[in-house]
Amino acid sequence: MDDMPSQSSPLNQDLIQSLKDLLGEKGWTDDQEIISPHTSDWRGNFVGHSDFMVSPSTTEEVSEVMKLCHRYGQPVCPQGGNTGLVNGGIAYGEIVLSMARMNNVRSIDTFNNSLVAEAGCILANVHTAADEQDRYFPLSLGSQGSCTIGGLISTNAGGVAVLRYGMMRDLLLGMEVVTANGEIWSALRGLRKDNTGYDLKHLFCGAEGTLGIVTAATLKLFPKPKTATAWLTLETPQKAVELLSLVRKHAGDSVTGFEILPKVGVELAAREIDAVRDPLPNEAPWRILLEVSLASEDHAQDVLQTVLEKALEDSLITDGVVAASLSQAEMFWHVRESLPLVKRGFLTSVNHDISVPVSKVPQFLETTEAAMKEMVPDVEIFAFGHLGDGNIHYGVAERTDAENPTVKAKSLDITFKVHQIVTDLGGSISAEHGVGLLKRDELPDHKSETELNMMRSIKKALDPENLMNPGRVISVR
Amino acid sequence: MDDMPSQSSPLNQDLIQSLKDLLGEKGWTDDQEIISPHTSDWRGNFVGHSDFMVSPSTTEEVSEVMKLCHRYGQPVCPQGGNTGLVNGGIAYGEIVLSMARMNNVRSIDTFNNSLVAEAGCILANVHTAADEQDRYFPLSLGSQGSCTIGGLISTNAGGVAVLRYGMMRDLLLGMEVVTANGEIWSALRGLRKDNTGYDLKHLFCGAEGTLGIVTAATLKLFPKPKTATAWLTLETPQKAVELLSLVRKHAGDSVTGFEILPKVGVELAAREIDAVRDPLPNEAPWRILLEVSLASEDHAQDVLQTVLEKALEDSLITDGVVAASLSQAEMFWHVRESLPLVKRGFLTSVNHDISVPVSKVPQFLETTEAAMKEMVPDVEIFAFGHLGDGNIHYGVAERTDAENPTVKAKSLDITFKVHQIVTDLGGSISAEHGVGLLKRDELPDHKSETELNMMRSIKKALDPENLMNPGRVISVR
Repeated sequence: MDDMPSQSSPLNQDLIQSLKDLLGEKGWTDDQEIISPHTSDWRGNFVGHSDFMVSPSTTEEVSEVMKLCHRYGQPVCPQGGNTGLVNGGIAYGEIVLSMARMNNVRSIDTFNNSLVAEAGCILANVHTAADEQDRYFPLSLGSQGSCTIGGLISTNAGGVAVLRYGMMRDLLLGMEVVTANGEIWSALRGLRKDNTGYDLKHLFCGAEGTLGIVTAATLKLFPKPKTATAWLTLETPQKAVELLSLVRKHAGDSVTGFEILPKVGVELAAREIDAVRDPLPNEAPWRILLEVSLASEDHAQDVLQTVLEKALEDSLITDGVVAASLSQAEMFWHVRESLPLVKRGFLTSVNHDISVPVSKVPQFLETTEAAMKEMVPDVEIFAFGHLGDGNIHYGVAERTDAENPTVKAKSLDITFKVHQIVTDLGGSISAEHGVGLLKRDELPDHKSETELNMMRSIKKALDPENLMNPGRVISVR
Repeated sequence: MDDMPSQSSPLNQDLIQSLKDLLGEKGWTDDQEIISPHTSDWRGNFVGHSDFMVSPSTTEEVSEVMKLCHRYGQPVCPQGGNTGLVNGGIAYGEIVLSMARMNNVRSIDTFNNSLVAEAGCILANVHTAADEQDRYFPLSLGSQGSCTIGGLISTNAGGVAVLRYGMMRDLLLGMEVVTANGEIWSALRGLRKDNTGYDLKHLFCGAEGTLGIVTAATLKLFPKPKTATAWLTLETPQKAVELLSLVRKHAGDSVTGFEILPKVGVELAAREIDAVRDPLPNEAPWRILLEVSLASEDHAQDVLQTVLEKALEDSLITDGVVAASLSQAEMFWHVRESLPLVKRGFLTSVNHDISVPVSKVPQFLETTEAAMKEMVPDVEIFAFGHLGDGNIHYGVAERTDAENPTVKAKSLDITFKVHQIVTDLGGSISAEHGVGLLKRDELPDHKSETELNMMRSIKKALDPENLMNPGRVISVR
């Protein structure tokens, strides 16, 4: 953590007083009971500390806060819903800058299919606002009840609709940012085409707060999809990859979900969680949750039926069922969403968020499982996720009641090996969770010095004093 | 053109000799007959000059060329198919760096739906390579027989499929770049998800060669679309915007084309160009070319029929026809593609490539036409283009045989006024053509100093010696 603030450096009291005067009592706190939930993550993996937290309520206040911090050389740690998994939003001595009070949906333009939301907006509230206008905002993930638009942009969040709609950056039409020196860059124009220079929003998106503070964004809306959902069981990941190709041949580019689940995970979920059951209990080691979106539900159902018959014919699947009702489809998705919970609850696991080209997922799974079995005697591979994107959440696990628990003890070796295989296959060691502090010092093993130097130059160009979430993603020292 | 090389500065002969030795006779020329087509644009609007042109055949050669140019402080002007419209790829004393010899499709991964193409690949050849593997690369525009992948990336090209598939940047999975100091950044991994730091490819995309040289890219492929096409006539652009909303309600997110054409343009094309006729000759002042892509042609046809009936019912359109055959659909598109030609051939016009939010297109057209009629007595407004993207190609025209031609004489005032209205409506003065030198000095009227300063900092960070296409897009002097 070389270029992070010293844990003991006291805050300048003139700065603190100026911030208090600027924001008023609703806008700041030094009460540790209020601050501490913001300086640790919900899983309790990371515990930081901060003596002062600001919660501006307008873009102008964020700008004034940054002007003051810039004048006093005070680093800040911007924070959204604090649902991150890579230790990117936890303060270690910096002032916490919470965006929670900037939570308005500023406007919706139904003819332009766009919505302007402030950084502190909860994702679920954006879903509702779009829905009320008969529109759809596709980004969807487990934490949508608490994660915020600003955090989703700063981490370029993924989720279960990426296959069809892309990551968060693909859903951005505009952005409002406060720079490291407190200037406001307002580019909220909801334009689908604008070729007037470097596209800066793609720099701030995914920068994890290290280049500036996203205060608002213009988001793309879509027509509400008419979907059909199927649950399939199959023998190998290779057959799953071929199945995806078959589906796209029949359903075109309308595949909106293609999630892979392991038998072991589905069984565990069915056993441990109420209202979760295995839709098709059988011996096949893998399941696929498949969703297509077309112009009408009937047509989507027809397409899935055709695909199912063809897939059985080609013995790509051992069995399959198309959800007969919305509630049955929701039940299928409920199984998928319960997997992270059962993994956390009933297994000890070392987890990875990796991606490889879709065509190489089978090779990745095969190679890595073999390597893990050599390292951990009673290993349970708990691999699931967004096969359609080549993104697998790869858990190297063991029953919590294992006789000689070894996963945690060997976690560093395990992660080193998994990430090595990923890189050999041309993959990414962080498909959707980001870098933060957790993976920062691993990047040099997986990226060229040329790329890291370009990242450093850009960080220095936009944040020369290194005040924006210093040390996360890339170290400039 | 403040920070462009002096037109008289002679090239360093040691550098020239080193480049000759490096590249061999196929890789360089100082023959003006060969160079001159590269130092002027196909419309003859811009005429530059260069004493030396290099044509490297590998990424390593590009790297060595840039190392030499970096050592000697020699600026370069990278060039693809030279089909640009904004004076971004014409040399004014720099060495021309033509990517024409790097024209291989390196690989195709059908299960990953990706293709790796070198910068010099002609777009039409990428279409063919994808087609041969039963895949589809959607980017499509008039110059596809000569424009290259590198140029399309450097200008973030748009075209007629943006509504559904996005601009060039949305079709990029990876990139290979030679930096200003000659290093090779290779990131061709065809990953759909990778959150390991700043997404640099989005900086190089749209930078018009000012940050580095794109030498290859990994492109997204799609299933071949099953389309249906309709030709509609209507009274006002407002009805066209409402029609788009109606289509999306019935066709979901499957609308792949929504082009607006003026009656005057279609009539002119039908009169002047063989094989072009007005599919529905009537008095309605506007036509819409509508295309939807679904899982099957039949279903797409059904959806369009439904939309047509509903649109007539709601009197959004005065008439409409769904293409009964592929050849009829191609005829519709032929009319669309002929509009730029007839405008250039039979009218004197001052042209603009603008965008506004889709919802504001009607207001833009109304306000601007009124303003133009005040400035030009016999003005013919020739407005057409990608209404679904809010992108209008706006020609302020006159019959070439006009008694007192005034458009050309007043072109500066006309463009100033059009762009002023665009900016007042929150639009862009270059939706898809880029900035180059043509629009560079206009940017300060339309972008904040904060944004321009960020662009300058990034240019200085990645090209400190200002050797990459200096002076285009943004001036750092």
